[in-house]
Amino acid sequence: MEYPKPITRLIEAFRKLPGIGPRSAQRMAWHVLEGNYDAAVELARAVVGVKKSINRCSLCGYYTENDPCSVCSDVSRDKSMICVVESAEDMLAIERAGGYGGLYHVLGGTISPTAGRGPDAIRAQELADRVRGGNIQEIIIATNPTIEGEATTLYLVEMLQPFSVRITRPAHGIPMGADLDFLDGDTLTRAMKSRAEMGHNQTKK
Amino acid sequence: MEYPKPITRLIEAFRKLPGIGPRSAQRMAWHVLEGNYDAAVELARAVVGVKKSINRCSLCGYYTENDPCSVCSDVSRDKSMICVVESAEDMLAIERAGGYGGLYHVLGGTISPTAGRGPDAIRAQELADRVRGGNIQEIIIATNPTIEGEATTLYLVEMLQPFSVRITRPAHGIPMGADLDFLDGDTLTRAMKSRAEMGHNQTKK
Repeated sequence: MEYPKPITRLIEAFRKLPGIGPRSAQRMAWHVLEGNYDAAVELARAVVGVKKSINRCSLCGYYTENDPCSVCSDVSRDKSMICVVESAEDMLAIERAGGYGGLYHVLGGTISPTAGRGPDAIRAQELADRVRGGNIQEIIIATNPTIEGEATTLYLVEMLQPFSVRITRPAHGIPMGADLDFLDGDTLTRAMKSRAEMGHNQTKK
Repeated sequence: MEYPKPITRLIEAFRKLPGIGPRSAQRMAWHVLEGNYDAAVELARAVVGVKKSINRCSLCGYYTENDPCSVCSDVSRDKSMICVVESAEDMLAIERAGGYGGLYHVLGGTISPTAGRGPDAIRAQELADRVRGGNIQEIIIATNPTIEGEATTLYLVEMLQPFSVRITRPAHGIPMGADLDFLDGDTLTRAMKSRAEMGHNQTKK
């Protein structure tokens, strides 16, 4: 026996969402089926709603209803710094942490020579345009510490050479609250190499 | 920094689905946001589609586009047997197992004295009507082995006493506390085949 077609169709639509297996998709479909009509309409409207009303900010590439977005148009932000991230999620993670008050630039992906994704696959040119046009003094490249993230960083550093702008990256090292005994060797080696001065020798340099 | 409103709205709509936490809802919303427009419209249409085109079969209570459903109107099925289940999922589980060729009756819930759900909360009267009206010779009560399932079975056995119909249940072998929907097909088929008599109508045959 098969499901009625509309149920199969809904299960398949749910299965395309990330992290949703056949079992979860089936449970979700039953839930919609057994729930009230208004709840289903609200879900459908919310899905189409984001596609209709949300676009990328023409400056930073974050998702927004208005262009430029609330971050780019926030007068209290330090407009001399741009933090470059791979995705809107990464940008939100830094915002949640709360210690940064500058602007952002969402690349929308990474460069990956092995997967055939070149500089055109990310919003690199848009970053160059912003640096050229604005009063930017520092670019913090906060890609993820992966092979693709490193390749992307190398490309951006190269691209930004012609501009008189400071290029930095967040420190890599031991995460707060971590146990050295359980830390991976790469992180530990990197943390040891880029050790920082402390105590009274620091003035010597 | 907050999400744009339409994104928050979608995350909240996803969170209402079963098994979807804040993290999954966020991931799903980003997926919709980054996916193409047609995919979002397809998801929205599928959600509303099940509500618009699917109803309960007036005979067995299963979800269907046409009334009666494909099972009730299947001429190859043994119309002398009705297997009574709590939910459409349980009916599908038995169908998947493959060893049963009779009809079904979906109760749409259980009787629970503690939760204040009486016989009116389930499709019990509809079952009595079917037994009264049709040529039913055997009723297999396949509720889940839980307190509510047992209470429901006891009620149904009592209700069906006036009719000259065999009342059976699937054999024990179904582990107590298990959910039919998650049981492997072999166990389920075996349990269906070695169903045991219950009620004093058994000698009549």
